Amino acid sequence: MAEHKILLTEAELPTHWYNVIPDLPSPPAPYVGPDGAPVPPEAMQAIFPPGIIEQEVSQERWIAIPEPVREALALWRPSPLYRALNLEKALGTPAKIYYKYEGVSPSGSHKPNSAVAQAYYNQQAGIKRLTTETGAGQWGSSLALAGQMFGLEVRIYMVKVSYEQKPFRRSMMETWGGEVIPSPSSLTETGKAALAKDPDNPGSLGLAISEAVEEAAGRADTNYALGSVLNHVLLHQTIIGQETKAALAKVGDYPDVVLAPCGGGSNVGGMMFPFLADKAAGKDIRLVAVEPSSCPTLTRGHYAYDYGDSAGHTPIMKMYTLGHDFMPPGIHAGGLRYHGDSALVSQLYDKGILEAVAVPQIATFQAGVEFARAEGIIPAPESCHSVRGAIDEALRAKEEGKEKTILFTLSGHGHFDMAAYDKYFAGELEDFEYPADAIDQALHNLPKVGT
Amino acid sequence: MAEHKILLTEAELPTHWYNVIPDLPSPPAPYVGPDGAPVPPEAMQAIFPPGIIEQEVSQERWIAIPEPVREALALWRPSPLYRALNLEKALGTPAKIYYKYEGVSPSGSHKPNSAVAQAYYNQQAGIKRLTTETGAGQWGSSLALAGQMFGLEVRIYMVKVSYEQKPFRRSMMETWGGEVIPSPSSLTETGKAALAKDPDNPGSLGLAISEAVEEAAGRADTNYALGSVLNHVLLHQTIIGQETKAALAKVGDYPDVVLAPCGGGSNVGGMMFPFLADKAAGKDIRLVAVEPSSCPTLTRGHYAYDYGDSAGHTPIMKMYTLGHDFMPPGIHAGGLRYHGDSALVSQLYDKGILEAVAVPQIATFQAGVEFARAEGIIPAPESCHSVRGAIDEALRAKEEGKEKTILFTLSGHGHFDMAAYDKYFAGELEDFEYPADAIDQALHNLPKVGT
Repeated sequence: MAEHKILLTEAELPTHWYNVIPDLPSPPAPYVGPDGAPVPPEAMQAIFPPGIIEQEVSQERWIAIPEPVREALALWRPSPLYRALNLEKALGTPAKIYYKYEGVSPSGSHKPNSAVAQAYYNQQAGIKRLTTETGAGQWGSSLALAGQMFGLEVRIYMVKVSYEQKPFRRSMMETWGGEVIPSPSSLTETGKAALAKDPDNPGSLGLAISEAVEEAAGRADTNYALGSVLNHVLLHQTIIGQETKAALAKVGDYPDVVLAPCGGGSNVGGMMFPFLADKAAGKDIRLVAVEPSSCPTLTRGHYAYDYGDSAGHTPIMKMYTLGHDFMPPGIHAGGLRYHGDSALVSQLYDKGILEAVAVPQIATFQAGVEFARAEGIIPAPESCHSVRGAIDEALRAKEEGKEKTILFTLSGHGHFDMAAYDKYFAGELEDFEYPADAIDQALHNLPKVGT
Repeated sequence: MAEHKILLTEAELPTHWYNVIPDLPSPPAPYVGPDGAPVPPEAMQAIFPPGIIEQEVSQERWIAIPEPVREALALWRPSPLYRALNLEKALGTPAKIYYKYEGVSPSGSHKPNSAVAQAYYNQQAGIKRLTTETGAGQWGSSLALAGQMFGLEVRIYMVKVSYEQKPFRRSMMETWGGEVIPSPSSLTETGKAALAKDPDNPGSLGLAISEAVEEAAGRADTNYALGSVLNHVLLHQTIIGQETKAALAKVGDYPDVVLAPCGGGSNVGGMMFPFLADKAAGKDIRLVAVEPSSCPTLTRGHYAYDYGDSAGHTPIMKMYTLGHDFMPPGIHAGGLRYHGDSALVSQLYDKGILEAVAVPQIATFQAGVEFARAEGIIPAPESCHSVRGAIDEALRAKEEGKEKTILFTLSGHGHFDMAAYDKYFAGELEDFEYPADAIDQALHNLPKVGT
């Protein structure tokens, strides 16, 4: 019988995170303030613990994973690497397809990989409470779980429209002891101002971030945690790529092309950074970020200085961006609806080390259904993007009659996204194109700092 | 680092199912018709394929698992055995707690273990279509998946009230290519009659079974598949107990007590039958079925001949029963709302070889939340029953200061049951007691056959 799953033992769980910064072709651009001056790491102390701030700017290539974090990760890790034998057969492709499945975590995605690390460093710093924001709920539920593990209270500002439309992600957070507040709320000045202007404000991720940051900045016992974009988050996710390399080594294989869905960049960084050293050493490997064509940050955005949030409260980062006030259409891959991208991913894309493709929504669900019927697992809408990318690579290999090894990250399951599948089957999903004139609009609104 | 998960390789997936029948203290009572005469195996040919009928009455102790079935199972099996280190710590118990997690299957429960086998034998028999019924949707989604794997069309009669209240299980079935029909429907005589009597009939499992059987009996290309109760279903589930024994042997451990949730008996048979030979050989091991106190088939039912369905269309089996027209209250563990129990489980319980306990609904959710906060995984309401049983055993061990090894089946995750957790947190769940006078009522309605 051919092996479907390549498993590692708990002893093979990585002992270190891989920090890509020392291996970048040039140092990353610093975060800056509205005046253009670099933001010193100390400025982040109001909302982040020392362990996290250190990691955000560290020059060390390998950073040891504390034993309590490894213990927490071991509840579901190492995650399985699958050979997609049934999908290969269904596609009739000569390509070999592997996928790393991150949906085995309790919250069903890769997000807890960073949530447990952040909860740990905050607990070590004597912090009692964490705040965060969530849209679709993947990150909020992961942080609720992590907080429970390390004895921290967690308050999650959940975009009000999601709070009302996605009650089950909310229930999940509450099951793990998290407190879920619909945002905008009357608990913060930002929220009160938004409600005063419009009592029926449906909320937005930008607004929820502002509420969570405001509360954390104002309370000594409370910090803030972010689920993507920042360097330390991508660092924590590098166990994905490390485990994948170790598993592939067991079967004596190596990918020609690696794909991951791309929103803020935590999947791309997590899977691809560990492969970068090989590429730098001359290995012929393609690393491809797959993003939605409705929010095509890498493929159609600008590489420029911009705010991380829509309200302009965060430091300014050099990144690919569609403009911080870009409002992506309401696609179902909520985790990919971000105007910008990780500074590290942006830098590597700018240098041509990472590639990117944009795929339309309907085609991603078509790929997700094809995958589910062959491999059983129903992918999250975000994960459908890398499935689409992988299937396209496999079909190209078939056309060209080429043997090829394709690897992708299946970042989560779709158990809380079945309403989106319903719409797909009912023919009610739409494809959105990022309008051409929006590029000028975005340029117009970029902060006037950096070069 | 202490190991949380004990994993087997795909090569260690069992090669045979274990058939408990030759090891029973006495032969099982035959299925009988309303006239009291045994139903010959051939009578089942209208709805079951030869491979399944053979297994239903086989006297062979070990039955080889066909390679295509092992291939299908290998998509998610062997399933992990967990040491519940965090739960042990949270309870402060000297007991060791292990749980076998069946929620890793694509449909999130143990149900596909039998669904893939049944789909395979039907495909081998040249059958093109399968019908079945589903309430909560666990079985229907598993059969849709299995049908997709073996190229069979699957039509699922879903109890109408569930069809309307649980749209996401329905979407899951459709994603795997299943056709879902709200029952009662106008596709069958049974359905038409029910609708003529009451156009707003909300449906019931008994009615849905009748519709599915009627269609299968009337079409040569179509068979019927059942997800619990029958001998062959329990046979297919014995891979659970076999894998568990192999995993425990790896860490040199053995349980003092084994618990599984009990509805129709597929979890109890699947986990416990492989331990029976050891018990017969003198091993001091307790095997405990955990059932809801609102539907206490084993602990308060009669051991008598009764119909398998509420309408009285199936053969009559000797089993523990609350009476085939018993309508259990609307508890959230839909998979445990069955008036009877597997004939094999009933026989072993009657002989005192298996034990049973009944637990009230609210206490099961309390246990589920405690488990989720310690171990991460949110259990299905059915699985909350064995969690409750295991926690009670662990607390007893603590009181008595006894070291003890507890093993239980965590039969599935609760991702599609978060509405039930919501009700628990809102204090809206109820405990139901099976009323004492219902025992007389049940006796009154039993068919007048057998002894």
